[in-house]
Amino acid sequence: METSSAPGKVYLFGEHAVVYGEPAVPCAIQRRATVSVEERADERIRVEADDLSLDGFTVTYGEDPDEADVDVPGALVEAATGYVDGAVEQAREAGGAPDAGFNVEISSEIPLGAGLGSSAAVVVAGIDAATRELGVELSAEELAERAYRVEHDVQEGQASRADTFCSAVGGAVRVEGDDCRRVRDVPELPFVVGYDGGAGDTGELVAGVRARRDRYGFAADTVSAIGDLVRQGTRALRDEDIAQVGELMDFNHGLLSALGVSSRSLEAMVWAARDAGATGAKLTGAGGGGCIVALDETTSTRHALEYTPGCEAAFRAELDPEGVRRV
Amino acid sequence: METSSAPGKVYLFGEHAVVYGEPAVPCAIQRRATVSVEERADERIRVEADDLSLDGFTVTYGEDPDEADVDVPGALVEAATGYVDGAVEQAREAGGAPDAGFNVEISSEIPLGAGLGSSAAVVVAGIDAATRELGVELSAEELAERAYRVEHDVQEGQASRADTFCSAVGGAVRVEGDDCRRVRDVPELPFVVGYDGGAGDTGELVAGVRARRDRYGFAADTVSAIGDLVRQGTRALRDEDIAQVGELMDFNHGLLSALGVSSRSLEAMVWAARDAGATGAKLTGAGGGGCIVALDETTSTRHALEYTPGCEAAFRAELDPEGVRRV
Repeated sequence: METSSAPGKVYLFGEHAVVYGEPAVPCAIQRRATVSVEERADERIRVEADDLSLDGFTVTYGEDPDEADVDVPGALVEAATGYVDGAVEQAREAGGAPDAGFNVEISSEIPLGAGLGSSAAVVVAGIDAATRELGVELSAEELAERAYRVEHDVQEGQASRADTFCSAVGGAVRVEGDDCRRVRDVPELPFVVGYDGGAGDTGELVAGVRARRDRYGFAADTVSAIGDLVRQGTRALRDEDIAQVGELMDFNHGLLSALGVSSRSLEAMVWAARDAGATGAKLTGAGGGGCIVALDETTSTRHALEYTPGCEAAFRAELDPEGVRRV
Repeated sequence: METSSAPGKVYLFGEHAVVYGEPAVPCAIQRRATVSVEERADERIRVEADDLSLDGFTVTYGEDPDEADVDVPGALVEAATGYVDGAVEQAREAGGAPDAGFNVEISSEIPLGAGLGSSAAVVVAGIDAATRELGVELSAEELAERAYRVEHDVQEGQASRADTFCSAVGGAVRVEGDDCRRVRDVPELPFVVGYDGGAGDTGELVAGVRARRDRYGFAADTVSAIGDLVRQGTRALRDEDIAQVGELMDFNHGLLSALGVSSRSLEAMVWAARDAGATGAKLTGAGGGGCIVALDETTSTRHALEYTPGCEAAFRAELDPEGVRRV
């Protein structure tokens, strides 16, 4: 049996604008998905998922997940088996073992569906553990590429390379189009995450930004301004200028809010964090609900978020310099 | 005795960016300051202020307000007498009566210090009533110019022409640099105002925007984007496209938030209004605290604001097509 873990992520800068070729900076966080994989004697796949910040489940199936023997129903299983299926397919291909069957155990500290990259982390860790179980070691870059293909298939072409690359290589990542690379010499980033328990509809939010950008020149300029802000933010990161990184997070949040992707609960959490003394605070991901990320090395922001109406969970999730790793 | 009233204002679009030569659209609201003026036999001035959404006061003085006979202490009197003094000085000049004394009575429906242009309304109404008491009729434009000189002196050069022009002529006004003109053919605008009971420090907020704009190209672009948005908003007004006006208010608010002039209570009120179904909602004025303005012809937004923590007062304040008027 082989076990691997891989981190979730937050967007320090640049979500939404990245769709239009602007750079973005997702960062791996010290919240991980862990996947254990053991080869079976048959061709079947058995998935056991515990502690997914949701009810766990167990499912065993062969070629057709519709014929699965499942102990919980629902979309959760369908989504999870899609990702696991994809990861297994990639591992079979990379390991030259098209008929390999596996027992897969998944656990995760990353809230599901919160925009923190839980599916990418499961896929990256899953491919890594399964290929190692087949005696093959893939580079982080190859894991990222294969995991992206899985997300691309499951999410019907909507996936970004950012989540899988960030989860595979760790640290702060600069994404621009299909080009992903690690940002070197990044200081420690004391992230605090606030989660409203919900999620926006990513497709709808992306479409809303596109409609505004198509209609109004100043909205297109706002998207470009985010790109310029990300370039400045990358310099601030390299200069270890945390105060400026925070100031730019605040600014980035305002521009996202202008583009129509904030929400009442996100705004309440962002301002609770700022009032608690956070160096910066912004929504992270598609918006419309979900998570905010703040910078605060003290416990003040987390405590303030815990008392903020609409905040379901608040936790520390510092920058994780490490990507996927053997456990 | 002559009595005049003049309206307060909200910014539909463009505050802060107007400092850098971009256009802005303040709008007169159906909340008025009323000033009665009666010439005295001597050269003294007696000011009685009631119902200023604060304790009223009475003060009588001659040349030197420091020697005033005052029944309440404090900065309120100093500020109010500064404006009244200025208005009297302008009236004496316009009326060719340099030694005229007056009894002045002020009442106002516009919260003081909330960024709704209460001082401009008092000065405009005061000059109008006092000049009429001296037998002179000034045009709205001349009243605006004289009232601006008073605000300019009292506010030590920080005053904008927008407040006084808007209060004098009424309706929606387009301000660009020193050029102020009425926007013609504007539909009814069902404004609702939410007030947090506080106020930001205008000088500090303006300086903060300047610092960001000087430091970051994308912040300068954000200021320019507001200008483009105002041009679009003026077209939307003329087209009577209220839905678009609301959408642009929301966008404008996000850009202001990016520039660092929003606050926790302003954001809470803006989102309460949007959740209640307002067509649009934004902070109005310098920000950092004070008021938001929303568009809603129903009572939903006002009710929602009344139940929003941090909102001290919520009231309807529709676009007032009329400026200063004889009462």
